[in-house]
Amino acid sequence: MPNGKPSLLFTPGPLTTSLKTKQAMLKDWGSWDKPFQALTASVCQKILSICTIDDAYVCVPMQGSGTFSVEAAVSTLINRKKKLLIPSNGAYCDRIALICRYLQIETVILPFDESEPFCPKKIEALLKTDPDIDGAALVHCETSTGILNPVEDIANLLKHYQKKCIIDAMSTFGALPLHTKTVPFDALIASANKCLEGVPGMGFVICKKEMLAQCEDNATSLSLDLYAQWAYMNKTKQWRFTPPTHVVAAFAQALEEYESEGGLDARHDRYANNHRALVKGMSSLGFDTFLAESCQSPIITSFCYPEHPNFQFQIFYDKLHAKGFIIYPGKLTSKDTFRIGSIGHLFESDIEALLKGVQETLFEMNITMPKKMEEVTC
Amino acid sequence: MPNGKPSLLFTPGPLTTSLKTKQAMLKDWGSWDKPFQALTASVCQKILSICTIDDAYVCVPMQGSGTFSVEAAVSTLINRKKKLLIPSNGAYCDRIALICRYLQIETVILPFDESEPFCPKKIEALLKTDPDIDGAALVHCETSTGILNPVEDIANLLKHYQKKCIIDAMSTFGALPLHTKTVPFDALIASANKCLEGVPGMGFVICKKEMLAQCEDNATSLSLDLYAQWAYMNKTKQWRFTPPTHVVAAFAQALEEYESEGGLDARHDRYANNHRALVKGMSSLGFDTFLAESCQSPIITSFCYPEHPNFQFQIFYDKLHAKGFIIYPGKLTSKDTFRIGSIGHLFESDIEALLKGVQETLFEMNITMPKKMEEVTC
Repeated sequence: MPNGKPSLLFTPGPLTTSLKTKQAMLKDWGSWDKPFQALTASVCQKILSICTIDDAYVCVPMQGSGTFSVEAAVSTLINRKKKLLIPSNGAYCDRIALICRYLQIETVILPFDESEPFCPKKIEALLKTDPDIDGAALVHCETSTGILNPVEDIANLLKHYQKKCIIDAMSTFGALPLHTKTVPFDALIASANKCLEGVPGMGFVICKKEMLAQCEDNATSLSLDLYAQWAYMNKTKQWRFTPPTHVVAAFAQALEEYESEGGLDARHDRYANNHRALVKGMSSLGFDTFLAESCQSPIITSFCYPEHPNFQFQIFYDKLHAKGFIIYPGKLTSKDTFRIGSIGHLFESDIEALLKGVQETLFEMNITMPKKMEEVTC
Repeated sequence: MPNGKPSLLFTPGPLTTSLKTKQAMLKDWGSWDKPFQALTASVCQKILSICTIDDAYVCVPMQGSGTFSVEAAVSTLINRKKKLLIPSNGAYCDRIALICRYLQIETVILPFDESEPFCPKKIEALLKTDPDIDGAALVHCETSTGILNPVEDIANLLKHYQKKCIIDAMSTFGALPLHTKTVPFDALIASANKCLEGVPGMGFVICKKEMLAQCEDNATSLSLDLYAQWAYMNKTKQWRFTPPTHVVAAFAQALEEYESEGGLDARHDRYANNHRALVKGMSSLGFDTFLAESCQSPIITSFCYPEHPNFQFQIFYDKLHAKGFIIYPGKLTSKDTFRIGSIGHLFESDIEALLKGVQETLFEMNITMPKKMEEVTC
């Protein structure tokens, strides 16, 4: 926190939130109390309105990190006598496979290279040949690289073959279009502290009411029983177990700001703009992106370590940290990378400040690299 | 929120927290960042110091409500080929039994009346005769009534018979003594938002390192795998999955305030004083407590509905609510009660204000009751 200014988080989350969102946490709420029940209902309604006008869908909030919500969805919705198809091009796809190992749900893993988006044709081939597949779990943006997977095409394929479509849209929901009109998912999971710019502590599952209603007694965890959470909330308007009241209040404020900013289109445009400015600036400083632009999301970008003897990530990170910028390490198995997020309460001026910080850091580390594009102007 | 003043929460949690604790949430933290790692470590260290000086114990934080931590402990620590003994005198004991049903862990339920504390002799009889019992899960204060169970005696019995002792100290930890010198537990579960006066969103399990180290691959949930949470944190100083950063920051501040207040003794004395003032005042207004004083905790008190034709709980609740006081409904099967908590950032002056509010409410509801003790002086 240099000069008393708070650090900016260029990470895949938790991320920078607005002051008003944080200030919404300056009040204690009774979780059993009617005003809090109304707050929860309004949060769920606003989330739903982002992706559907179809009242066949419900939004069920869940305590914990996003992974808790993913596990709740898989544990509650998947038929344990069948298999879950998991295309994988990164750590978050693999995490769903790991959840299935814990839950003793049989999986069909379809591996892709970390730089390659899921291929709908390969998925279709499996759907055609394996009748035991109950559905597929699709990571929309695999934040270990920032790659975007073609979930729209795959969701429509799954619908055609009458298989369940579960989308882990943790890092895209609210910024990239995932409307039920075009992406016919059965369940979609995301969390408060990504593109909706709330604080961490809760996630949610949007799913088809009719499907959820058939899943009583399917979950193998009390805490993560999505059916029970929904049924109880339906009956009482309350969370089954103590909700993170302050986190919910912050989320309500973040959702108000989302609406006043202009909803999905405006949020997408701000992030896309951040991403463009970032890649242009980093490129002009000599950094290569890991992914091809065609499959790169505007959410988070993986940059390759430069081939310079003076570059050490920890020093680079620490020097940026001292300047008030928090970036993120890489999460790839194949190549050394670091990541910079474009999401959260960040604007082009923040990207420009970061780029200036990167430029100064390279200078301090005595690193000069061949310029890729025009000089950065910040 | 009358006259712009925030409502006071006389509940078993979430409860009233200090302004400074809430203000600690006005900053965004990078969860991968070293200052946040240090914050987590300091929170865990402070929690441990409340109940042990023995470095055989570790504190493992867990996202979610207290129930998530209870389930994580049971899922990770109990041998699935054996049985868990659950003495029960209320809803939170029953909840542990329900967790076991989800986890397919066999249980031995030892039922007690809701007004009767666990009987160590009956527990010993079972320990003597059933060699398949792996351990017992004991709720310290059953907040559905406020009854206090004799966990010290039972923990020593369990140690004698070499059975695991798991204590659900959700609503007592930090205010009632549970030191490992006198209460030799193997695991103890509590949460941030009870007597330690943090905000809701995380719990923790204090447990014997040696026992936890033997529990790899035992949990049946990825999110709630206490062993994996501990092992990862041990290796990386980070939480496995996104932590509720703001909640952790608030907890760190609440723990500082706990220490400056004078730790466990001071916290206990304040709550005991609140409880005494509450019971004296309510009694003078004509209300009976549900429990005998001998087994009543200073945490939360169940009051019986008065036998007056004008008394309707919802009206009573709403009128108190309008005055800025949030109380809690009952959770008993046998008798109509409501509950008033004495914990949280509440002081005798707050209890006096509540009592005045109750007196006014009774007047408004045209309820006069025979006085039980001297007139309340507030």
